[in-house]
Amino acid sequence: MKVVPLGERLLIKPIKEEKKTEGGIVLPDSAKEKPMKAEVIAVGEKVDNIDVKPGDKVIYSKYAGTEIKIDDVDYIIIDANDILAKIEG
Amino acid sequence: MKVVPLGERLLIKPIKEEKKTEGGIVLPDSAKEKPMKAEVIAVGEKVDNIDVKPGDKVIYSKYAGTEIKIDDVDYIIIDANDILAKIEG
Amino acid sequence: MKVVPLGERLLIKPIKEEKKTEGGIVLPDSAKEKPMKAEVIAVGEKVDNIDVKPGDKVIYSKYAGTEIKIDDVDYIIIDANDILAKIEG
Amino acid sequence: MKVVPLGERLLIKPIKEEKKTEGGIVLPDSAKEKPMKAEVIAVGEKVDNIDVKPGDKVIYSKYAGTEIKIDDVDYIIIDANDILAKIEG
Amino acid sequence: MKVVPLGERLLIKPIKEEKKTEGGIVLPDSAKEKPMKAEVIAVGEKVDNIDVKPGDKVIYSKYAGTEIKIDDVDYIIIDANDILAKIEG
Amino acid sequence: MKVVPLGERLLIKPIKEEKKTEGGIVLPDSAKEKPMKAEVIAVGEKVDNIDVKPGDKVIYSKYAGTEIKIDDVDYIIIDANDILAKIEG
Amino acid sequence: MKVVPLGERLLIKPIKEEKKTEGGIVLPDSAKEKPMKAEVIAVGEKVDNIDVKPGDKVIYSKYAGTEIKIDDVDYIIIDANDILAKIEG
Repeated sequence: MKVVPLGERLLIKPIKEEKKTEGGIVLPDSAKEKPMKAEVIAVGEKVDNIDVKPGDKVIYSKYAGTEIKIDDVDYIIIDANDILAKIEG
Repeated sequence: MKVVPLGERLLIKPIKEEKKTEGGIVLPDSAKEKPMKAEVIAVGEKVDNIDVKPGDKVIYSKYAGTEIKIDDVDYIIIDANDILAKIEG
Repeated sequence: MKVVPLGERLLIKPIKEEKKTEGGIVLPDSAKEKPMKAEVIAVGEKVDNIDVKPGDKVIYSKYAGTEIKIDDVDYIIIDANDILAKIEG
Repeated sequence: MKVVPLGERLLIKPIKEEKKTEGGIVLPDSAKEKPMKAEVIAVGEKVDNIDVKPGDKVIYSKYAGTEIKIDDVDYIIIDANDILAKIEG
Repeated sequence: MKVVPLGERLLIKPIKEEKKTEGGIVLPDSAKEKPMKAEVIAVGEKVDNIDVKPGDKVIYSKYAGTEIKIDDVDYIIIDANDILAKIEG
Repeated sequence: MKVVPLGERLLIKPIKEEKKTEGGIVLPDSAKEKPMKAEVIAVGEKVDNIDVKPGDKVIYSKYAGTEIKIDDVDYIIIDANDILAKIEG
Repeated sequence: MKVVPLGERLLIKPIKEEKKTEGGIVLPDSAKEKPMKAEVIAVGEKVDNIDVKPGDKVIYSKYAGTEIKIDDVDYIIIDANDILAKIEG
């Protein structure tokens, strides 16, 4: 199954970072902040105000977009306007 | 009876997925999340910002649109802007 | 008395459908949902984003428009934007 | 004293209809619904989206406009956009 | 001291009308409605949607504008859009 | 240190007026209304809808703008739109 | 890791000023006001309404923007519109 974002939207996949407490214990999901880093999976045809392509790592606006699950993996369909920055290197 | 969406609206038919609990029991409707997948039934004449046609499967914005019942089947009349993505394959 | 809708408005006449309980008893008005089907009576001069004419049956946005009574019959003056779809056949 | 509506506004004079209870008793003002019918008294210079002239009877949007009293008579200064329809015949 | 309204604003001076109770007693200020009649004192350079000049009597939108006191006299700096009508004669 | 307002903003310095009670006692700061008179210190490059220059005295919209302290003096960075009038003489 | 702000956004780094109480004691972070001074780190490609470049010191709108941490240092991704002024000298 392939999801093609429409208009000025992108399909992104949040990057969950393991967060350890000082003693090195990995916290369960509910205790972590919502991640804001994501990998771009697909870019809608009408996205032209930002320069990103599939594979890019981006920072997106917390709480923006619509969460969907594809084959049990979490994705977000998000407006190009809610992509704040690109991470390089 | 045929319903023709006007302006930049589409007529879509939500796809209800059976959701089973771990023990394989099918949940009644009220216990399921509102579906977000739909089949496009008809496309208004002025829809031009997204590329969808009758028969396409789409993901739409939860809570968007107006629910109507035609011959006892549930449909949604929805703005083209609230269609988020197209599902392929 | 004739009511001519101004600008991008239409005059429509809600179609009340009798709703029977399972035992075939007709419910009084207050127990029914607000109807959403209407017949177009008159179309304002500046309506150009939708293609409807007097006599057409339409579906309109619940709670939109202004209700008026003409010779004891209920009508609605409604923006063209709140007409969602046309019913054919 | 003459009141000249400015810009896209009109001066209208609500038409109060006597409302009788079933037994024919005239209700005092406070017990009646706010009237929605009015006579157009004057039309602002920049009104061009609707076709009305002094003397026309119109239906206006409930609660719109600003009520003023001129020589103890109630008038409303109202935006052209809040005039919904013209009454003919 | 001279106050020159900027942009699309005007400087107006509310006209307080003495209001008498039936027995002819003049009510103190706090018991009166906020006045809505004013004299135009100065017109900002960019006011072009309404045709008023210093000395004109106008009706303005209740609660609009910013009240200022100049040499102990009350004035209002108000947007041209909040001037509703001109009073003639 | 010099603060240069950007875009359509101005840097203004509120003019605090001593307010005396009837008996001539100067009230402490907290008991005074927020001042609305200010001196223009600097004008952003894109301010073109109002005609003010450094040194002008202006009246500004109460509560508008962002307060900053430069070398322990209070200033306000404010949108040109929130400057209501110029004081002359 | 390098963060490239997209569209009309900038990456800025808040400048925390040590704030001493009268007795010269440095207050812990939670007791200080949110800083409003920042250094510009990177400017998005579409920023054209303000004239700032990396290295400039700016004053930004309190509470605007999205805070991110890069290598344990706090940054803010912020709209060009929320940069109020430039600090010189």
